[in-house]
Amino acid sequence: MANYTPKPSDKFTFGLWTVGNIGRDPFGSPTRKPLDPEYIVRKLGELGVYGVSLHDNDLVPIEATPAERNRMVKRFKKALEDSGVRVTMATTNLFADPVFKDGAFTNANAKIRAYALQKTLYSMDLGAELGAPTYVFWGGREGAEVDAGMNTLDAIAHYREAMNFVAEYSQDQGYGYRFAIEPKPNEPRGDIYLPVVGAALGFIATLDKPELFGLNPEFAHETMAGLNFVHAVAQAIDAGKLFHIDLNDQKMGRFDQDLRFGAENIKEAFLLVKLLEDSNYPGVRHFDAHALRTEDEAGVWEFAKGCMRTYLILKEKATRFDKDKEIQAILKAYKVQDSGLGKLSKKYTRKNAETLKAHTFDRVGLGEQGAGLERLDQLTMELLLGVR
Amino acid sequence: MANYTPKPSDKFTFGLWTVGNIGRDPFGSPTRKPLDPEYIVRKLGELGVYGVSLHDNDLVPIEATPAERNRMVKRFKKALEDSGVRVTMATTNLFADPVFKDGAFTNANAKIRAYALQKTLYSMDLGAELGAPTYVFWGGREGAEVDAGMNTLDAIAHYREAMNFVAEYSQDQGYGYRFAIEPKPNEPRGDIYLPVVGAALGFIATLDKPELFGLNPEFAHETMAGLNFVHAVAQAIDAGKLFHIDLNDQKMGRFDQDLRFGAENIKEAFLLVKLLEDSNYPGVRHFDAHALRTEDEAGVWEFAKGCMRTYLILKEKATRFDKDKEIQAILKAYKVQDSGLGKLSKKYTRKNAETLKAHTFDRVGLGEQGAGLERLDQLTMELLLGVR
Amino acid sequence: MANYTPKPSDKFTFGLWTVGNIGRDPFGSPTRKPLDPEYIVRKLGELGVYGVSLHDNDLVPIEATPAERNRMVKRFKKALEDSGVRVTMATTNLFADPVFKDGAFTNANAKIRAYALQKTLYSMDLGAELGAPTYVFWGGREGAEVDAGMNTLDAIAHYREAMNFVAEYSQDQGYGYRFAIEPKPNEPRGDIYLPVVGAALGFIATLDKPELFGLNPEFAHETMAGLNFVHAVAQAIDAGKLFHIDLNDQKMGRFDQDLRFGAENIKEAFLLVKLLEDSNYPGVRHFDAHALRTEDEAGVWEFAKGCMRTYLILKEKATRFDKDKEIQAILKAYKVQDSGLGKLSKKYTRKNAETLKAHTFDRVGLGEQGAGLERLDQLTMELLLGVR
Amino acid sequence: MANYTPKPSDKFTFGLWTVGNIGRDPFGSPTRKPLDPEYIVRKLGELGVYGVSLHDNDLVPIEATPAERNRMVKRFKKALEDSGVRVTMATTNLFADPVFKDGAFTNANAKIRAYALQKTLYSMDLGAELGAPTYVFWGGREGAEVDAGMNTLDAIAHYREAMNFVAEYSQDQGYGYRFAIEPKPNEPRGDIYLPVVGAALGFIATLDKPELFGLNPEFAHETMAGLNFVHAVAQAIDAGKLFHIDLNDQKMGRFDQDLRFGAENIKEAFLLVKLLEDSNYPGVRHFDAHALRTEDEAGVWEFAKGCMRTYLILKEKATRFDKDKEIQAILKAYKVQDSGLGKLSKKYTRKNAETLKAHTFDRVGLGEQGAGLERLDQLTMELLLGVR
Repeated sequence: MANYTPKPSDKFTFGLWTVGNIGRDPFGSPTRKPLDPEYIVRKLGELGVYGVSLHDNDLVPIEATPAERNRMVKRFKKALEDSGVRVTMATTNLFADPVFKDGAFTNANAKIRAYALQKTLYSMDLGAELGAPTYVFWGGREGAEVDAGMNTLDAIAHYREAMNFVAEYSQDQGYGYRFAIEPKPNEPRGDIYLPVVGAALGFIATLDKPELFGLNPEFAHETMAGLNFVHAVAQAIDAGKLFHIDLNDQKMGRFDQDLRFGAENIKEAFLLVKLLEDSNYPGVRHFDAHALRTEDEAGVWEFAKGCMRTYLILKEKATRFDKDKEIQAILKAYKVQDSGLGKLSKKYTRKNAETLKAHTFDRVGLGEQGAGLERLDQLTMELLLGVR
Repeated sequence: MANYTPKPSDKFTFGLWTVGNIGRDPFGSPTRKPLDPEYIVRKLGELGVYGVSLHDNDLVPIEATPAERNRMVKRFKKALEDSGVRVTMATTNLFADPVFKDGAFTNANAKIRAYALQKTLYSMDLGAELGAPTYVFWGGREGAEVDAGMNTLDAIAHYREAMNFVAEYSQDQGYGYRFAIEPKPNEPRGDIYLPVVGAALGFIATLDKPELFGLNPEFAHETMAGLNFVHAVAQAIDAGKLFHIDLNDQKMGRFDQDLRFGAENIKEAFLLVKLLEDSNYPGVRHFDAHALRTEDEAGVWEFAKGCMRTYLILKEKATRFDKDKEIQAILKAYKVQDSGLGKLSKKYTRKNAETLKAHTFDRVGLGEQGAGLERLDQLTMELLLGVR
Repeated sequence: MANYTPKPSDKFTFGLWTVGNIGRDPFGSPTRKPLDPEYIVRKLGELGVYGVSLHDNDLVPIEATPAERNRMVKRFKKALEDSGVRVTMATTNLFADPVFKDGAFTNANAKIRAYALQKTLYSMDLGAELGAPTYVFWGGREGAEVDAGMNTLDAIAHYREAMNFVAEYSQDQGYGYRFAIEPKPNEPRGDIYLPVVGAALGFIATLDKPELFGLNPEFAHETMAGLNFVHAVAQAIDAGKLFHIDLNDQKMGRFDQDLRFGAENIKEAFLLVKLLEDSNYPGVRHFDAHALRTEDEAGVWEFAKGCMRTYLILKEKATRFDKDKEIQAILKAYKVQDSGLGKLSKKYTRKNAETLKAHTFDRVGLGEQGAGLERLDQLTMELLLGVR
Repeated sequence: MANYTPKPSDKFTFGLWTVGNIGRDPFGSPTRKPLDPEYIVRKLGELGVYGVSLHDNDLVPIEATPAERNRMVKRFKKALEDSGVRVTMATTNLFADPVFKDGAFTNANAKIRAYALQKTLYSMDLGAELGAPTYVFWGGREGAEVDAGMNTLDAIAHYREAMNFVAEYSQDQGYGYRFAIEPKPNEPRGDIYLPVVGAALGFIATLDKPELFGLNPEFAHETMAGLNFVHAVAQAIDAGKLFHIDLNDQKMGRFDQDLRFGAENIKEAFLLVKLLEDSNYPGVRHFDAHALRTEDEAGVWEFAKGCMRTYLILKEKATRFDKDKEIQAILKAYKVQDSGLGKLSKKYTRKNAETLKAHTFDRVGLGEQGAGLERLDQLTMELLLGVR
């Protein structure tokens, strides 16, 4: 058996709020005590974690004075230094406070939109001070239950203004952030704007500086909408927009579960790991999940270790998949090449079109060939189950 | 009571396959006889319909010889002329024949990809001959059940090649098509590529000539994934990409139902009609739905009339909404303006950022104000129910 | 226009926790202040509400001493008396405290199961003291995320033991409760036992005194699973098991929204009201919903009024439906009678079976008849929209 | 590595329609040729299959004359005898013919209800002649899209009449059938009556001879509604009602996929196999699935072998789970016993209630204990992945 113990070079990261989750939910009070940010960072360091991410208010409460803020940041930096853990991503909490109950950047109230932007600028300052290279926007409150408010088109326009503003601010301040938008279909809002990976890709194309913006896709969020997360990440990679990634798990069609990576959809988790590794994704592997509310602190660290072990197990399976001769033979037969036709359809020229139109295809014959996918899928499952 | 009888100026259109649907489903054989394209066109004309759309094989069977094809086209043109109905959209059937069982433009087999392109070119010729200004791509078979086939990234790349090819062909032939991509999350494939409106918007941004491509969003398709269709259409409008629209209805989280427009989600249908009318959407209102399998031909025409009547009823409700003083007062209070702060956050300048950061906000006070949305939503429902 | 102002004889009831909801969710802190139970009751009385329901801890905090408890109960009874509002249902909070994080009656820990039962007995005492005729069980924590805990069969058995115990206790104490089980598919647990109406009906059949147990179906809960709530309530009525009902609304396939009654699925809400009225459902119309988190207290009372107004509007529509001649003619044609065949198939006798087997049916002819449902559904929608 | 080759003693069975599926779907024509029933039976025999199931019309077309029917049955019996495969379940096709488009037993037309019953009696004769011990009812057309048809309560009543009728017929004819109801939430109908396992359990409790009726739960059907199939099967086992089972797989919240067993939800498939084996389920393991439409006949047999291999692999994992010392230690700690309290809460006596009410619980302490489920679930996943 291989060794599945994580090392910093594996580039695993956790949010402060993930292992720090206190187990509150809409129907129940907390089951765990809050953990100090410094304690979390030290613990993560011991587990071989590479980095940590945070919202402004994970470290500095919204009511803190500047002096308190500076003291907290100082202590936190010390803990980072001691543990060798770095801050790999920062973001703004634009969802917890009642002021954001009907949106932040997209709020129908101009004052609240301005306040959301102000809070973000300060949070970007904090992230920059901590050395975060990536800045995430998860617009959890940017949405609606009552579309009779007639705010949808305005909301998109205001969202864009905010993104254009922060991009300029980052450049002007020399922060060098790469911005990653994190979509989610619903919860806490009935419907959230930019609900899925594609929507964020489409939105980025309308920004002033699209090159500064990419995606932070989350496994659970696409899965809530019943979409295929591997397809979504592939589209982001294809567009050069995979800037960050949130790994966790979830059953489809229900509330946001934020389960341990690999806890539910193990085949999709495997295909995701393979996609990330095959495409040499250079970013961190960020776990945005939390231990079940049934667990005490010991369970929290089991949860964290489990996320990383499962990734490493699946990474090894991906290597095996590439070395499996029968699997590779099926794949080769599946991807039928035809250099002549391939050239014709690759790029339009009048000549290519004419030649293509004149070509005679054996439609019926092509339709009779089996794709061999049942066998391929079964072999993949058996490889995953460790019986080949 | 107003008159809800459709006129051509309402720009309602139907696909040949919609009223022509024969009532077959995965568990049952057809319950209705096929209708001749010419008969359909004449019937639609009588109902006040503006235009008709078609797949190549709705008019010309896949096995037809060129001579047969020409005869059919001639007869069809005659029917169009007689009825005053025009062809407003054309598209390719790349899903019914067994050859496309594992994809058309994205098939792992280069020969099939080439055949799909060839078939599309001929179908574009047909559409142009019939005067269709818009050409739709619904990639119903572009997807997968077995991602172990390791085709996802290739599939996206091949999809792009095909789109780039047809765009050039259209220009080179002088067809002047506007292309509209129609997303769908799943069915018939386990997962379809470009599953929702956003994904198509993101994909278009990677094409050679994005200006030629837009969206054909479908009510039922976004709804299958539990997404908010009004939000999706608003994003398409915001991006200048609403080229066509498919109106129908659907319950969330289940198979593709293609119900009569307004049959299920009447509030969302109302908000959609209002959005289209308010933004002066210039395109056709295309119904891509079919009568229930329980119906005979009489039921088919009831279905068609119902789609149009409901649109007209909702359009009138939209006018009422704008004239309702109490509703408008709530909306006005809801959209709090602040010209000072609004200016600061609208566009980045170093000065704006500094002024904004120095501003003192009454966070707690802003958080205590109610949005008034329960009352607004209730009034909207009562307006819809005809009791105000 | 009719008068849609509620009166006690309409039998509308609200839970203390519904209008008392403080607007906390998994991502945000409260947006509203807690309201005193006495204040709520007086307010409800002013609105024409018939009754109120409560969890033990809505009135008496879990840490209260017996003396505190008695003081609170006394004050509450005074408020009930003053307002003319009665307690129509009581239930136990077996979900908020950390002790119940992995279940109450079904917990894998025998001590916690016993504690849950103890808490329930005291809560039943409280409900009886307040005169509640119905006692509800919503097993919000009775479920699992980790079925590897191998608790499923045990959990069902323990659930049954608890139900059998409380039934005997109620009888022995002379409380005369009717027990109503409230199913929910998920949230807060990944999967909840007895997830839908049918599951509870099936479970009741295994109890010692099934006659004491019925259902408290909730609109939002069945809808979360994409099931048809009208069908579920009809099955409960058919089985003589509709003991209570929770009215609210919800979009399918997402977190528990508890929206204002009629806010989303207006056609289904109409069909539900019609079913309740047509079957002379004698119980209360209980709203288990809450104002959106965006609202202040004024919005809460708008929400409450909206729930009741919508019910009354739909009740009037139901009367209109029965008087609509065209609709009734379609219904009559739809329900084809055949007294001869009807008698044969109604009840088995050897003779009936033989005669039936010998009968010649015009299968093809029967299959060609249209059901007329598109027209019926369209007329129903137009009636709902107030244009007929 | 163990040997995962199926043997008849494993009791695997397939429907004629499963391996015989021709790959038609709502958007595409067949991709495979029909296979003769005799050929299927012989092939299944070679693969080590125990039995076969069938609808009347899988063997005998609906238009066949009695003479044709007898010839077909004779040939089929010969194939059964030759192959050693037996008929383990029979059922009626009450969904494919247009006559059933709006329901069979629940149709609003009395003539069609009678015809459905007649067809069922003949089909029961056929099943009995072939020696089938179990008779399944899947009411695929028993449902509605238009509840304004006001048929719901009648439908349930008519369904019950039909079930009562066939039960008597079976007894009177000495057929000795056990009847198994197979629920499904939707598709082909918008909503199907008796949508999930629980609904069928509740319905059975209202029948004249409930002891003759049980369940045929299907993995994909509960999963379509996002419900936990293991929980559903456990409830059926608890009620003594697991008469048959349909094994396959499915993604949640979409059309009926009927995927190869274990293709998607491998953890749930494992837990199901463990439940069946632990509770000594004596019935057959019936695969109601089909090869992907992308496959040719070779793919069909790979699909069939894959279903059985995966079951056997998971069965071996279940044994390993029971022998895994660390897993068993966690389970033991998880299921906290307390003989004193356990006795008190097990059964009501006045004394037990009094003692229980007087007991002092350490609520806070009990709430602080972690359940250890993250570790247990991770170990289970690692066992499944073959790395422990």
